Amino acid sequence: MALTSLNQQLLSKIATNDEHGENSPYFDGWKAYDNDPFHLSKNPNGVIQMGLAENQLCFDLIKEWIEKNPAASICTTEGSMAFKDIANFQDYHGLPEFRIAVAKFMGRVRGGRVKFDPNRIVMNGGATGANETIMFCLADPGDAFLVPSPYYPAFVRDLRWRTGVQIIPVTCESSNNFQITIEALEEAYNKTVEANIRVKGLIITNPSNPLGTILDKDTLKSLVNFINERNIHLVCDEIYTATIFRLPHFTSISEVIQDMDSNDDLIHIVYSLSKDMGFPGFRVGIVYSYNNEVMSCARKMSSFGLVSSQTQYLLAAMLSDDDFVGRFLDESLRRLECRHKIFTEGLKEMEIHCLNSNAGLFCWINLRPLLKESTIEAEMALWRVIINDVKLNVSPGSSFHCTEVGWFRVCFANIDDDTVEIALQRIQKFVTKKEREVATVKKKRCQMNL
Amino acid sequence: MALTSLNQQLLSKIATNDEHGENSPYFDGWKAYDNDPFHLSKNPNGVIQMGLAENQLCFDLIKEWIEKNPAASICTTEGSMAFKDIANFQDYHGLPEFRIAVAKFMGRVRGGRVKFDPNRIVMNGGATGANETIMFCLADPGDAFLVPSPYYPAFVRDLRWRTGVQIIPVTCESSNNFQITIEALEEAYNKTVEANIRVKGLIITNPSNPLGTILDKDTLKSLVNFINERNIHLVCDEIYTATIFRLPHFTSISEVIQDMDSNDDLIHIVYSLSKDMGFPGFRVGIVYSYNNEVMSCARKMSSFGLVSSQTQYLLAAMLSDDDFVGRFLDESLRRLECRHKIFTEGLKEMEIHCLNSNAGLFCWINLRPLLKESTIEAEMALWRVIINDVKLNVSPGSSFHCTEVGWFRVCFANIDDDTVEIALQRIQKFVTKKEREVATVKKKRCQMNL
Repeated sequence: MALTSLNQQLLSKIATNDEHGENSPYFDGWKAYDNDPFHLSKNPNGVIQMGLAENQLCFDLIKEWIEKNPAASICTTEGSMAFKDIANFQDYHGLPEFRIAVAKFMGRVRGGRVKFDPNRIVMNGGATGANETIMFCLADPGDAFLVPSPYYPAFVRDLRWRTGVQIIPVTCESSNNFQITIEALEEAYNKTVEANIRVKGLIITNPSNPLGTILDKDTLKSLVNFINERNIHLVCDEIYTATIFRLPHFTSISEVIQDMDSNDDLIHIVYSLSKDMGFPGFRVGIVYSYNNEVMSCARKMSSFGLVSSQTQYLLAAMLSDDDFVGRFLDESLRRLECRHKIFTEGLKEMEIHCLNSNAGLFCWINLRPLLKESTIEAEMALWRVIINDVKLNVSPGSSFHCTEVGWFRVCFANIDDDTVEIALQRIQKFVTKKEREVATVKKKRCQMNL
Repeated sequence: MALTSLNQQLLSKIATNDEHGENSPYFDGWKAYDNDPFHLSKNPNGVIQMGLAENQLCFDLIKEWIEKNPAASICTTEGSMAFKDIANFQDYHGLPEFRIAVAKFMGRVRGGRVKFDPNRIVMNGGATGANETIMFCLADPGDAFLVPSPYYPAFVRDLRWRTGVQIIPVTCESSNNFQITIEALEEAYNKTVEANIRVKGLIITNPSNPLGTILDKDTLKSLVNFINERNIHLVCDEIYTATIFRLPHFTSISEVIQDMDSNDDLIHIVYSLSKDMGFPGFRVGIVYSYNNEVMSCARKMSSFGLVSSQTQYLLAAMLSDDDFVGRFLDESLRRLECRHKIFTEGLKEMEIHCLNSNAGLFCWINLRPLLKESTIEAEMALWRVIINDVKLNVSPGSSFHCTEVGWFRVCFANIDDDTVEIALQRIQKFVTKKEREVATVKKKRCQMNL
């Protein structure tokens, strides 16, 4: 018997099927970077990592705070008296001061227009864990969730892999700047119901990854109406809330439902500190549900992904320092806007256009003019050239389940100023070469016609 | 429609059934403690927490190390240069230095007789997460795992809740000191197979929680043969390895399979630093599988329960300090032995007997002589008296799925010397009162007979 077939008997279906979603260009690009990482002096011809949505622009502020606040850590002389109590602390409610600080922070980054109840803060292992937890709470294996596309590639892992929940894409298109329409939602919903699949909810990412756009209040209201009419859930992934670097203002779902006659038992927020504070390593994911039963169940599930109490302790102190938080958020948005401007204006000069956006750590750029033909194969061919020759790890739209070809997500906040400059130069060189190729082809065609 | 019935439609089966296992006296006892926690000066009549298997005897050594090693933390002036890289680090392989340090530590606490490969160290959110991960890898919903009883109450949550795996108890009895026998294993296995349920493996806890005993080499060999003959898995939960405070020496499954012609693809170890180092708050669980495919799948799953990189960084430094680790382990075992001796000898003077043990953070004590009758109801009645009147949170054997009544698990390493003394005094007073009651009853009977 072949090894695979043997293991199929020995291991679980989850372990032997291929539904984790790791076989995606999204992750392959990371591997290309890992094999040949760019370094300004040590490896100047390496791959530049523009596939990682990380916010690395403000660590100097964090470092400064750390040095001024030794008592915030249980691993300093000033804080070590707390070591025992904190190393022991494993209550799935979390440290009260941590929950209070996170609730306050969540309100603050949403403009202070909504209050979050610390008792509803449920911890999880990053947004990854929070996404899975909310699915385990809301849906049975085989049930479906509607997900507007393009969407975060690892949703396949987070929402579906171990829960058995199905993802039903809701098509969004460039013709209206990839906005979610009720028509597209209805179409996806009806098709699924007709296929005898139970739709348990809709999950939106606002601000959007990969688009970098935000949903306006009216759209949010229409979504709330949509899910209320069908008595299904609305999960709002708001992990990029503090990356909105220019107007218009952000409207959180929590703000929208304040003024509406909605069944709040259907509304759930996923939050995280990975993007907004730039701490993906700390694995802080939050499920904030307005449904008491979901909150209680999610809290029990948090046993599988509690935040290290050492980290809770540090963040409790850091996030409750109002002055620091204010300064950090202001400066972070200022630097994000500046970086976004440098990058997008650089691209504009090369006649490469980005979707107009005001949030996120990435641009959604349109490279369709560079495709040989309008197919996924052509998109992948271009992507391979960008990875292997231009040596930029960017992520093709198809890995975000985008239905239109030629779009790419390019991250700009995880690298330094010099690296951005080099990335732009590489793109410039590539585009010029491409133009020359096109010109040559045209010239040849011209000569043949003569 | 009733609220429950409405929610049953709205939420998942997992969220609305009662299979989390939280409705157990094991957890109820914690609540009793939480409502009225003992404090030597502030609440001397409160409930003493003896239901928590925590090792709190050596935090002075940790504190000393912390203060001497400021660079081990990214939250000190000495270590803050690393803050950015560490806060960003989210690779599911874990920090290389963390994996190396954990592998070394795992070998050391197993007497240095086996080596662990750092590349096989897979992180998880505590043993809780590690247990669930290994189940997700090995079994499909409806499949079964054999679990010798009495067993850890929260296995119900860890192994079964979200995976849908069935737990089949293997009965162990006091007549042979609760040792696992091949006869009992065969009986459980055959019954399950006859019921058309697929048995995917056996999970053992060695050292045992709640027994505090360890398995000898011959028994382990017979278990390896048992699972090899049936081509099923053996999962060894070895999270209490560094609590073996007196002879005989511990034998890890990793040592046993070195000398055997076993299919190592069937062997998996669950480890943690919650008990051995006393850091449950840090949520360090490890899956160590000899099966490459399981290792790879478990690593993908670790995305849901990665250890905070701040914590990885600290532990990498701490656990790779050989001198410190040596001193800590020696002192920890010395203090555990001393505490165990004080507690069990105190009980012995009251003619309360414990199962003979050499490991763990608890005793398995026999209170059957105090039961009114040999029923679970009588055990629960006695337990309620112990919680409410004697004011000790201990855990009844039935919550460990023990098939014999009258056994209780009493933890002794999470409290200080004074509290142990008070607990013993309370037990003494209770036993004396009980004896008086029995004497009175006897006297009355005697008088009636006259």
